[in-house]
Amino acid sequence: MCPAQVQENEQRGYIIPVGGGEKKVRTSTILQKFVELSAGPDARIVIIPTASELDTAGQRTHGVFRELGVTNIEIVDLSTREECEDPKQLERLENATGIFFTGGNQLRLSTTIGGTSAASVIRHGSARGVHVAGTSAGAAFICEHMIADGKPGATPKRGMVSLAPGLGLTNQVIIDQHFRERDRIGRLLTALAYNPFATGIGVDEDTAAFIGPDDTIEVFGSGGLTVLDTSHLEYSSMAEARQGQPVSLMGVRMHILLAGDRYDLKKHTAFPGNK
Amino acid sequence: MCPAQVQENEQRGYIIPVGGGEKKVRTSTILQKFVELSAGPDARIVIIPTASELDTAGQRTHGVFRELGVTNIEIVDLSTREECEDPKQLERLENATGIFFTGGNQLRLSTTIGGTSAASVIRHGSARGVHVAGTSAGAAFICEHMIADGKPGATPKRGMVSLAPGLGLTNQVIIDQHFRERDRIGRLLTALAYNPFATGIGVDEDTAAFIGPDDTIEVFGSGGLTVLDTSHLEYSSMAEARQGQPVSLMGVRMHILLAGDRYDLKKHTAFPGNK
Repeated sequence: MCPAQVQENEQRGYIIPVGGGEKKVRTSTILQKFVELSAGPDARIVIIPTASELDTAGQRTHGVFRELGVTNIEIVDLSTREECEDPKQLERLENATGIFFTGGNQLRLSTTIGGTSAASVIRHGSARGVHVAGTSAGAAFICEHMIADGKPGATPKRGMVSLAPGLGLTNQVIIDQHFRERDRIGRLLTALAYNPFATGIGVDEDTAAFIGPDDTIEVFGSGGLTVLDTSHLEYSSMAEARQGQPVSLMGVRMHILLAGDRYDLKKHTAFPGNK
Repeated sequence: MCPAQVQENEQRGYIIPVGGGEKKVRTSTILQKFVELSAGPDARIVIIPTASELDTAGQRTHGVFRELGVTNIEIVDLSTREECEDPKQLERLENATGIFFTGGNQLRLSTTIGGTSAASVIRHGSARGVHVAGTSAGAAFICEHMIADGKPGATPKRGMVSLAPGLGLTNQVIIDQHFRERDRIGRLLTALAYNPFATGIGVDEDTAAFIGPDDTIEVFGSGGLTVLDTSHLEYSSMAEARQGQPVSLMGVRMHILLAGDRYDLKKHTAFPGNK
């Protein structure tokens, strides 16, 4: 699915993929910044724990937001497609200033929420200014083309990655997470090699890309953000490669960004944090 | 990529996936109808043979359109990403009333055209009223989520299908072609099981789905159109299935449509041709 249209006089909310590593999130700057954007102490945070098979995932995240001073926190447990049509749950989503997807399995998110009224409410909320963050599986889910799974390794190979339709808050980027920790540059390059229209964003653990309304990214957290820019791609051998074979890719531009660094997705330009 | 926005007072062109089997196309009603929509004898048809590795693909299709009485036919051979930025080629695309993608390999289309100015011109042309048809690989390429390849068989299985970002003229459907001939219902169901937001359209050879500006489909040609409607999907076990394992899917609605039959993608309703 693709992003809802931003109406005149309105501004899209931030889209915030977090690279996973939730144990560290509690002490990091990432959720602090998310809460601050979502109206600080007046924030109305909705947690969606659908990706996780653990009943405790929502509660754990609830505790973290409480420590950060938020009092209005709702866990909206969309565990079936039927619940994604429940007017009470939809009202909670409508009222949020910030929505947070926990980690787990992104296919639980896309198979449960995809195509439902809940997905539509979240997409329209984002276009209206609601900030939407997701960690790990939650990060993968938020874009139009979602990495469902894949194989580790540095060399792109045909069939190394499985793409599936995601929630569709943005189609400017394809997101991968646990990026450096799980050696995922090959699979992200493979995803881009299929169709180089998007920019690849590899998010390390305890790291987040805050994608602003103007499609400029600012990095937060302790790890790195790998930007793979295929806007000047000269050649990809994907169409000729057989299943499992390596793919040649010419003209990819790469940036490794750290906290404070920025990247303009429209102009394909990176800026150091101190400039 | 997602569809360009249709401006007020304008109407999107028809989007026309054809199921392949080009030998038969010459005598079928499909290209006749395409030419008629594209202004009949005044049509300005552009053929894009990028999907094919054969230099003759464009010429062969050129001959078919000539037989149908079209005089203004251009072959726009976008064989490199550089050519997709060439102002002369872009002007030809701008001037078309109908654009036709030949068959071959859809990854040649997405890797060559994806993210270029040519893709943008075609997307905006479609939103302005240009009719865009594609046969076989050309049919797969035209939607937002493109089936890049997959395995035959009737039972959906995790990993049975590879999706990649397509041209993005519509995100209402996921298209598969040579449908009955190559036993592809399992892979189309798998694509839908990842995220049930789209409707599956399986197009047999010598058959076409004419998707109108109002998102109503009319069937042309000698074969069948299989519609897989997941708008009321109750359950999918995709998130739990391991690679290669079958997936359970509950609540899929199926329609097999023939020439003259119609399907409303917004209301998810099928109409017999005689009503």
